[in-house]
Amino acid sequence: MLGARAQGGWRALRRCASLPRAVRLRVREALGAREAADAVRVQGWVRSVRSQKEVLFLHINDGSSLEHLQVVANPSLENRDLTFGSAVEVQGKLVKSPHRKQNMELQAETIRVVGPCDIWSFPLKMKERHPLEYVRQFPHLRCRNNTLGSLLRIRSEATAAIHSFFQDNGYVHIHTPIITSNDCEGAGELFQIETSSEVREPAEKTHFFNVPAFLTVSGQLHLEVMAGAFTHVFTFGPTFRAENSQSRRHLAEFYMVEAELSFTENLQDIMQVMEDLFKTVTSTVLSKCPHDVELFHKYVAPAQKTKDRLEQILKNKFVTISYSEAVEILKQASQTFTFKPEWGCDLQTEHEKYLVKHCGEIPVFVINYPYDLKPFYMRDNEDGPQHTVAAVDLLVPGIGELCGGSLREERLPFLESRLQRLGLTDAYQWYLDLRKFGSVPHGGFGMGFERYLQYILGVDNIKDVIPFPRFSHSCLL
Amino acid sequence: MLGARAQGGWRALRRCASLPRAVRLRVREALGAREAADAVRVQGWVRSVRSQKEVLFLHINDGSSLEHLQVVANPSLENRDLTFGSAVEVQGKLVKSPHRKQNMELQAETIRVVGPCDIWSFPLKMKERHPLEYVRQFPHLRCRNNTLGSLLRIRSEATAAIHSFFQDNGYVHIHTPIITSNDCEGAGELFQIETSSEVREPAEKTHFFNVPAFLTVSGQLHLEVMAGAFTHVFTFGPTFRAENSQSRRHLAEFYMVEAELSFTENLQDIMQVMEDLFKTVTSTVLSKCPHDVELFHKYVAPAQKTKDRLEQILKNKFVTISYSEAVEILKQASQTFTFKPEWGCDLQTEHEKYLVKHCGEIPVFVINYPYDLKPFYMRDNEDGPQHTVAAVDLLVPGIGELCGGSLREERLPFLESRLQRLGLTDAYQWYLDLRKFGSVPHGGFGMGFERYLQYILGVDNIKDVIPFPRFSHSCLL
Repeated sequence: MLGARAQGGWRALRRCASLPRAVRLRVREALGAREAADAVRVQGWVRSVRSQKEVLFLHINDGSSLEHLQVVANPSLENRDLTFGSAVEVQGKLVKSPHRKQNMELQAETIRVVGPCDIWSFPLKMKERHPLEYVRQFPHLRCRNNTLGSLLRIRSEATAAIHSFFQDNGYVHIHTPIITSNDCEGAGELFQIETSSEVREPAEKTHFFNVPAFLTVSGQLHLEVMAGAFTHVFTFGPTFRAENSQSRRHLAEFYMVEAELSFTENLQDIMQVMEDLFKTVTSTVLSKCPHDVELFHKYVAPAQKTKDRLEQILKNKFVTISYSEAVEILKQASQTFTFKPEWGCDLQTEHEKYLVKHCGEIPVFVINYPYDLKPFYMRDNEDGPQHTVAAVDLLVPGIGELCGGSLREERLPFLESRLQRLGLTDAYQWYLDLRKFGSVPHGGFGMGFERYLQYILGVDNIKDVIPFPRFSHSCLL
Repeated sequence: MLGARAQGGWRALRRCASLPRAVRLRVREALGAREAADAVRVQGWVRSVRSQKEVLFLHINDGSSLEHLQVVANPSLENRDLTFGSAVEVQGKLVKSPHRKQNMELQAETIRVVGPCDIWSFPLKMKERHPLEYVRQFPHLRCRNNTLGSLLRIRSEATAAIHSFFQDNGYVHIHTPIITSNDCEGAGELFQIETSSEVREPAEKTHFFNVPAFLTVSGQLHLEVMAGAFTHVFTFGPTFRAENSQSRRHLAEFYMVEAELSFTENLQDIMQVMEDLFKTVTSTVLSKCPHDVELFHKYVAPAQKTKDRLEQILKNKFVTISYSEAVEILKQASQTFTFKPEWGCDLQTEHEKYLVKHCGEIPVFVINYPYDLKPFYMRDNEDGPQHTVAAVDLLVPGIGELCGGSLREERLPFLESRLQRLGLTDAYQWYLDLRKFGSVPHGGFGMGFERYLQYILGVDNIKDVIPFPRFSHSCLL
C-alpha cells in the first residue's frame, strides 16, 4: 500500500517545476477538506519525522488545530534541517487518507525548511508528553506544546463567547479603568503605580496623577456608573491583587468578567444571568473546541470525570441555598473542620468544598450573607437590623468561589449611614452622588476567567491557564 | 388630535388595576416595534417633561439608543418627583406615533418614579447641549449626556467588530501580560509597579516580582512568541505611557489592537490586514450605529465633513509612499517647517500633516524607514548597509500616526549583532531564543483604539473617547 501511495506522490513530484502557485491552506482547513486538491501549500512546524525506506512521514502543525496534518513524501526530500521543531512549507496534493484516524493527508511535492530548529537546545522533545510543571519553565516556548496549544485556543474561544453572550443580550461593553484611585472593596494588598522617576527619587513625593494611583481590583463601581445610563453593561479585563503570590489558586494579574444590570430588584435575576453566562460559554467552547477540551478531560484531569460532570451540569438548574442553610448543613456535618462553622463567620475553603460535595459536586449558589461580612455597597435585605445582604457566591467543585455578586444598595440614606460608620464618605462622594440622580435598584456580578477555565478543564494550577506564567525571574517576560 | 390620543390612553388607564404583568421592552425595541402592543413596560431615565393642559409628554431613554421614546400621558399622572433625570417605569400601550419623526410612542397607563433626581444639584440640564469640556468634569455622570452615550455605544460596537474581524479570519486571541519586565521598544517613560507596602517602606528594596516590573507599553513581543505557534494571533488590551499627560493627543492608559502574522515575507501583507481591519470595523460601526455616528458628524465635527470623507475612504485603496519619497515631497513643499525635512530624521507632526494633505486628506501608508530610526526588532531591508527597515506607519488626517507595523527580524545573526551593539543581548535572550527554534518570516502591527475613534468621529480631544476621563484629582475615580 505504501508503494502505491508513494507512486502517486512521486509522479506529482516530477511535475513540480511547472506547478502554478498553490492555494495556501491552514492545517485545520486541510484536515477538514471535503475533496482532494492538486496544488496545496501548507506552512507550519514539524511535530514528528519518521523516515522509512520508501517513504518519509511528517506531522506538521500550525496551531489552527490540535490534530496535525500528515505529510507523506519521497525520502529524497529529507534533509539535515528537516527536524522536529523546524518550520516548513510543504507543497503538494491533498488527498483522502487511507488511515481511519485522519481525513486527509498531504502528498508532498516540495518541502522547504523555512526555519531550522536547534533540537539539542530546544526544551521540547518529539512525541514526549511533558508535564505542565516542566513546560511552565519556558514561557516563550510552551505554546508549542499540545496541551498549551489547546488551552490557548480554548481561552480564545471562551473570550469570544463571553463577548458574544453579552452583545447578543443587549449589554454595552465598557473599558473600565485599569489605573484608579479607588480600591473598590478594600480587598487585600494593592499594587501602586509610580513613574520610573518617582521610584528613582522617592524623596519627591509628588504623584503623576496628583493622588496615589493603584491597579484596579474590580471594575464594579465604574460599571455601576455606566449602568445608570445604559441599564445593561459589562467589562472583561485584567484585575490585580498583590497577595498570596506563590499559591496554585491565585495570580497577581487575572481576568474578570463583570456585569451590572439596572432596574433589577431581585437577586434571582442576577443569578439567572450568571447561570446563563456559564452555560452558554461552556456549550460554545465544547462545540467549537471538542478535541482541545477532550485532551484536558482525557489526559490532564482524567480522574475527575470533568466531561461527564459538565454535561450533567449543563442540563440541570443550579442549586441555591441560603447562607443560613449552609451554616446549618455544616454544623450537622459529621466531618470535623479546622474552622468551626458559625453564623456570622466567613465560609472557609473547607466549608465551601463540603457544601459542594453535600449538594452532589455541582455548582451551588449561596445567597443572603451576613451584613457585617460584606462590603458597603451590598443591599440590606432588611430581614432584621443589619442582618443579611442580598449577596450571592457561586461555588463550584475543586475551585470554590467562581462568581460573586449582589444587589447594590441604591437607597441614599442606607448608603450614607453605612459609609459614614466606615469613615468612607469623602472617598465615595461620587458614588453617593449616583444615588441622588435617578437611582434605581440594580445589581451585578463578577466571574474569575482563569477559575472558570480551571473548572471546565479540570486544571489544578491556575498558572497553567494563562498565556504567560509568572512569579519567577525567568518567567516575567 | 391630542384629545383623541388622550382618550385612547385614559380609557386604557381605567383598566389598569386588572392589567396582567406587561412585557418589558428596551427603548430601542419599543422604537423599532412593527406593531402596536397592549401591555408594555419600559424603564429608563426622563430626558424631558412637557406638561400641557390635556396631555403630559415625556421622553425617556435607557441607553439602548440615541433616540428617546415619547410617552404620552394624562396630566393626572404627573407628580413632584417626575422630573428631568428621574428614573421611571412606564406601563401602557405601544402605538404607532402620529409624528413623522418617530415610529412608535407609549400611551402611559401607569408611571412609577423609581428614583427621583435632585435637579438643582444635577449638573446636566434639560435639553441643553453641554460642551464636551463641561461634561468631562463629571466623569460619573457624563454617560447620561447624549454625546457620551453615543460615544460609548460606538466604542462598544467597535470593540465587538475588532474581535469579530480577527476571529473570522482565524486569529487566536491572546491576553498579553499587563505587568511585564520588558519595555518593548524603549519607548518613553514607564509606569513602575510596587506593592503598597514597598511604597510605604522604600528602604527595603525587594521587589514583589524579584525584578522591577512595569505596565506594558505594547504586547508585541509576547504576541511574537505566540505567532511562533499559532501563525495568526491578536490582542486588544490596555497599554500605558507615563508621558505628556496634559495633551489633547495622549493618554496615560489607552487601548491597542495588535496582531502578528507568521510566514509573512512581504510588508504589503501586513498593510493589507491593517487596511482590511480599518475598513471592516468602520463599515460595521457605520451600519450598526448610524444615528450615533451621525450625531458626531453633524454636531461635534460638522466642519470636518468626516462623513463624506469616510465614505470616500472606504471605497478607495489606501495610498502608499516610501519614507524617501515622503522626504522628497517635504523638501519640495512651498511650506516652511519648524523642523527641516532631512533623510534620516523622524517625521514630525507638521510633516505628517503635510503629507496627508498632499495626498488629498486620506490615509497614507509610509514605508521603509531609516534603519537607525527604528527599534531593534524591525527587519533590515538590505538595500544598503543598515539603510532601511521594512517598517510602515499609517498616517491619517487630523491624527497623524494611527497604526504602526513592520516585518520583524527573524534572522538570528542579524538580530544578534544588533542587540549586541545596543547592549541588550542579556535582556532579550528569550527573544533571541525564538530565532533558534523554527523561526519564520513574520510581521505585525498595532493600532491605537482611541485614535481610531477620534479619527472616524472627528473628536478633537482624546479624553472624550474614553469611558472615564483622567488627569485631574476629581477625575481619577
